[in-house]
Amino acid sequence: MFAEIITIGDELLIGQVVDTNSAWIGHELNCIGIEVLRITSVRDRKEEIVEAIDSAMERANIVLMTGGLGPTKDDITKQVLCDYFQTELIFNDTVLANIKRILGDRVPINGLNQSQAMVPKDCEVINNRVGTASVSWFERHGKVLVSMPGVPQEMKVVMSEEILPRLQKYSTNDYIVHKTFLVKNYPESVLAETLEPWETALPECIKLAYLPKLGIIRLRLTARGENENILLDTLEKESLKLKEILKLNIMADSDLSLEQLIGIKLKDKGLTVATAESCTGGNIAARITSIPGCSSYFKGSVVAYSNEIKTRVLGVNEGVLNSKGAVSEETVIEMVKGAMSCMNTDCAIATSGIAGPDGGTKDKPVGTVWIAVAYKDEIRTMKQSINRGREMNIERAGNNAFMLLLDIL
Amino acid sequence: MFAEIITIGDELLIGQVVDTNSAWIGHELNCIGIEVLRITSVRDRKEEIVEAIDSAMERANIVLMTGGLGPTKDDITKQVLCDYFQTELIFNDTVLANIKRILGDRVPINGLNQSQAMVPKDCEVINNRVGTASVSWFERHGKVLVSMPGVPQEMKVVMSEEILPRLQKYSTNDYIVHKTFLVKNYPESVLAETLEPWETALPECIKLAYLPKLGIIRLRLTARGENENILLDTLEKESLKLKEILKLNIMADSDLSLEQLIGIKLKDKGLTVATAESCTGGNIAARITSIPGCSSYFKGSVVAYSNEIKTRVLGVNEGVLNSKGAVSEETVIEMVKGAMSCMNTDCAIATSGIAGPDGGTKDKPVGTVWIAVAYKDEIRTMKQSINRGREMNIERAGNNAFMLLLDIL
Repeated sequence: MFAEIITIGDELLIGQVVDTNSAWIGHELNCIGIEVLRITSVRDRKEEIVEAIDSAMERANIVLMTGGLGPTKDDITKQVLCDYFQTELIFNDTVLANIKRILGDRVPINGLNQSQAMVPKDCEVINNRVGTASVSWFERHGKVLVSMPGVPQEMKVVMSEEILPRLQKYSTNDYIVHKTFLVKNYPESVLAETLEPWETALPECIKLAYLPKLGIIRLRLTARGENENILLDTLEKESLKLKEILKLNIMADSDLSLEQLIGIKLKDKGLTVATAESCTGGNIAARITSIPGCSSYFKGSVVAYSNEIKTRVLGVNEGVLNSKGAVSEETVIEMVKGAMSCMNTDCAIATSGIAGPDGGTKDKPVGTVWIAVAYKDEIRTMKQSINRGREMNIERAGNNAFMLLLDIL
Repeated sequence: MFAEIITIGDELLIGQVVDTNSAWIGHELNCIGIEVLRITSVRDRKEEIVEAIDSAMERANIVLMTGGLGPTKDDITKQVLCDYFQTELIFNDTVLANIKRILGDRVPINGLNQSQAMVPKDCEVINNRVGTASVSWFERHGKVLVSMPGVPQEMKVVMSEEILPRLQKYSTNDYIVHKTFLVKNYPESVLAETLEPWETALPECIKLAYLPKLGIIRLRLTARGENENILLDTLEKESLKLKEILKLNIMADSDLSLEQLIGIKLKDKGLTVATAESCTGGNIAARITSIPGCSSYFKGSVVAYSNEIKTRVLGVNEGVLNSKGAVSEETVIEMVKGAMSCMNTDCAIATSGIAGPDGGTKDKPVGTVWIAVAYKDEIRTMKQSINRGREMNIERAGNNAFMLLLDIL
């Protein structure tokens, strides 16, 4: 059973907006055994949308579309679908009632809102409980096409509550099972060489993929076949062999983020953490707090972007700061100690570096980041010295800090 | 002159990785007047890649591909291109030298690295100075196909330094000019109704699009035509009319993020800022520090996730905290004052709320966030009470905080 995704909107093509809908939908479909063949993004033009629908309906049994359902003139998806399926727009009471409920007293209902209550005839109209754009479900010759709003949070609610449960009955007998390992300490080519004998001997039903990102490689095993138990067994056996080869370089045997791993470890041990961040500017704290329930182990953070805050709030020794500089092992050690004592935690993370694009010197070029982690009386440090641009330098520093903390715990 | 983008990799289709390359490429091409017709993401399968190339080459003059160039077995793009263009892989000295330089002493050269030095014959091989995967530039019958690495930071360097300069000569006589306005205080439908008379009267060469996101609407005007001066003139005239209609609800007349706007304003006025964050957990600080050069106005942040940090570091009055609760106007006022005095800044932002998914009560449901901003002696507050899930609640709180600060300045 194959699906395709079509995302609609000029903003995607001119790069004003990144299409995050497709990855989310792909992941969810995969979980219920439906494989996505292709993702297509097209502009808000009738003929281009029609061409995309046409070829997707030819290849796949299920076509999921997002976008182009807003109340404004640039949004044309509903009318295009009517033309494509040779039907027309009709007024729908339930949809209007929903629009009124969503807009509440804040917004007066106007003609444009009314137009959102016009929906294609000859399709099932599905309510969108968190937005004003309704969902259209078309079934023709055993194939399904669903048009959903492009706003990610609306699409997610509609997919989870309405579309995925309905699609489950279309799922084939083929099971798809993924298992992902987080691997550290390996460049991609060295890892691939190390794994080659094992990879070559993998059974037919298992496929291996390498996903390297800023110092970590995610290894994904995908098993596909008719018998779920056999798949799980085979995957388990191969996983054991893989663990035997990579040993402690495997940080996790599921597709978790480093911040999720940190959270699990700290919760298990009943420990608390704080961060003291200079160049990462709150990014590490933000990653920790992206995990629901982090309040049981995360107490807080001091983002000491200026030296004044380093001394004033974290109590970094001014002499050290002046003699060694803000980007130094000595300063980052002072910072991690300061974080622990000022926020009274069991462990802490500290960073200080030059994220770029400016501010580098010959001794400390852009990309230099000193990282320290502390757990009770133990402190470990590392120096990061790769420059891949501000954003990546900051993200990599977070990755390294999390890996260092996992090591020390 | 039209382009298409093809991104390759199973990870995109199963949703393990979000395709950010396409948006970036789309944006860059647009800037040099090349319009992107379609983005296609396909799996690492020969026939699917070939089909995507075939139909893209039919519609567009330029096809840019990313992905599938790694050293591991799952990466097949180079071989597929050889088959497609009826050529073969040959060894390239320069590419090998580059691979050795990139890997340095850290990584021994193995067979897999060597295989990356095999490149298609009958194409121009372009060096990738920041990675091991080389770039292939094919020209056939006046059309261009370029295959680039999928790692975003490598693709960006290659595109900026090598591909875009070469593509500029393919750019048509048609100019494309965008102008984006950031609008606040309007629901989408009300804005569209307000603008309808003006929108209907827009000249043929201008297209309008609405991009709403968490309390802000980006209005994009796109002008297209042969004479750049006429386009710019027309755009300017329509922009003036738009400003006349929306007045102070326009926060900016260029496509800036709120954190960029804040940065410009603070720099202009020579002011400094700090944040005190509870539920936003460092996100606002991270957004401020995502802007290069922010050190001239951003001093730091206290992420006071636990109440202990609120009193201990920010000096929030314990009586207020106990009687009014952490999520209250009174507490967030204490926090914003604490941030200003503890970090010695001219202005500050503070947040405290329930990001979810848990922790809500009847009086303070999930999504409730109190926000305060301070500028010298003035303090303004607002209560946010929409629940769109943890991530969006946090992002919206940041947006509201930035807008409130822009207001007060």
